[in-house]
Amino acid sequence: MENSIRIESISQLHDLIGYEKPKHPLITLIDVKGIDPTISTLDLDVFTNFYTISLKEGNHCRNKYGRQYYDFEEGSLTFMAPEQALHVDEDKAELKSSSGWLLCFHPDLIDKSSLAKKMNQYTFFSYASTEALHLSEQEKTKITAIVNEIRNEFSQNIDIFSQDLIISYVELLLNHCKRFYGRQFITRTKVNKEVILRFEALLNRYFDSAKPELDGLPSVKYCAQEMGYSPHYLSDLLKKETGKNTQEHIHFYLIEKAKTMLIETEKPVNMIAVELGFEYPQHFSKLFKNKTGMSPVEYRK
Amino acid sequence: MENSIRIESISQLHDLIGYEKPKHPLITLIDVKGIDPTISTLDLDVFTNFYTISLKEGNHCRNKYGRQYYDFEEGSLTFMAPEQALHVDEDKAELKSSSGWLLCFHPDLIDKSSLAKKMNQYTFFSYASTEALHLSEQEKTKITAIVNEIRNEFSQNIDIFSQDLIISYVELLLNHCKRFYGRQFITRTKVNKEVILRFEALLNRYFDSAKPELDGLPSVKYCAQEMGYSPHYLSDLLKKETGKNTQEHIHFYLIEKAKTMLIETEKPVNMIAVELGFEYPQHFSKLFKNKTGMSPVEYRK
Repeated sequence: MENSIRIESISQLHDLIGYEKPKHPLITLIDVKGIDPTISTLDLDVFTNFYTISLKEGNHCRNKYGRQYYDFEEGSLTFMAPEQALHVDEDKAELKSSSGWLLCFHPDLIDKSSLAKKMNQYTFFSYASTEALHLSEQEKTKITAIVNEIRNEFSQNIDIFSQDLIISYVELLLNHCKRFYGRQFITRTKVNKEVILRFEALLNRYFDSAKPELDGLPSVKYCAQEMGYSPHYLSDLLKKETGKNTQEHIHFYLIEKAKTMLIETEKPVNMIAVELGFEYPQHFSKLFKNKTGMSPVEYRK
Repeated sequence: MENSIRIESISQLHDLIGYEKPKHPLITLIDVKGIDPTISTLDLDVFTNFYTISLKEGNHCRNKYGRQYYDFEEGSLTFMAPEQALHVDEDKAELKSSSGWLLCFHPDLIDKSSLAKKMNQYTFFSYASTEALHLSEQEKTKITAIVNEIRNEFSQNIDIFSQDLIISYVELLLNHCKRFYGRQFITRTKVNKEVILRFEALLNRYFDSAKPELDGLPSVKYCAQEMGYSPHYLSDLLKKETGKNTQEHIHFYLIEKAKTMLIETEKPVNMIAVELGFEYPQHFSKLFKNKTGMSPVEYRK
């Protein structure tokens, strides 16, 4: 790939952006203002093998990070897991005027710690950059204080306690971000309600078309793509608003549709299953029984 | 037991010390200055079913908390696990002049969290109160900041993120304490060296007496008791200074003694085993082989 580059280590990252040597081999904090804006890698997609949490400040990044008029605007946090593309910034002129930082840490830092097992709970690492976390001033102060503690830890002499402390601070940071995303889902209630309506309309259109018979059941990934979200963000949003994630919504909608067809038509159960997108009718019967407590035939009676 | 009392909950603790109702059912921070000094429970041994971390300030508590002239004096932290006796303070007059706080949390707070599995790593919860952690001003500032964050967390509206955040802060606090105890073991090098000499003299006396044959091998608990330390503190001190914990020291000493007896006497191996305190000679042979790579008989040749 011509327009992409792979970064294998924190030290390689520092080299590429023209930054001084790292203080710790597995974690670093990079001030965006310290990045050399003449370096050639800025136009490339950068793939890394580490986690990156980045804070962008300034109003110009409103659209790129999906900020809405009712979001806070003190800064936008984005989260990237290893192997996701990291854009240092697309526009060199913009980079000059922007400020913020990147906190990068290698999975080896948390390897064998209890945090490693919990990383999949922080689903925001799978969100798109347009689904950033927009911080209030108070939230930004808290995040900044923790990030400074992390920098103090990895910048001073490393002792046998350093790693546990850095991991504790990272976990604390992620737990705060989890709460702040929870807050963002709540303050976005109005737009979230619209998302739910759009999602229901999407499922409606899908099941009313020939798509189920041709392409099968709608997948979580397909729905998220059609709505313009990442699968994790859509699921977290739906869960916060309705208590049901994307998959549960699809099943709920499917069963409602099936009930209508069972009551209002005389089509055989197998035909209904096929029309709803099931390859094997017995899968339909099993799901129906699981969700309603009775089989399709019993329900029809 | 007339002179002891059991406290089952944070709320019962608040009642007993004449303190306002708790803000959280499983964790509290009590300002020592807020404790009613006229209450009758002050003379009792208090047994609780929660963890307590307590900071005492003021010079008067020098002896009670084992502070030495080369220790820091900004405050002394003591750590108590559930079921250990907690002295609010023996002297009411003293209580009036002292300041500090108690952070108490119930094991249910951390139940099922990864911290619960790690609590046994924080061996200082088994130290005696005379083995307190004596803080520098900088250390005290750090501890106080974290404790204030914990109080902010449990005092504000509790949401589904509160518990994870409180646990993160508690873990961060304990990891800092672990480092500070490490520092204290280092700054106490002179006194620690004396402890090692005293420990070696103790083992010497023990093996030169009739005790092994009468009472068996010296236990870790026995050694700690004779030295005036809690077993965990003695082990952690020895480990920091020499790389070997109490048990490893006892074994090392035992094997050295055995080697001398094997070379310098013609006593049968079984008799040596009995004289060293082994009930079953085959246990001696197994340990000897394990530590030296050869059996006692092979060693003698």
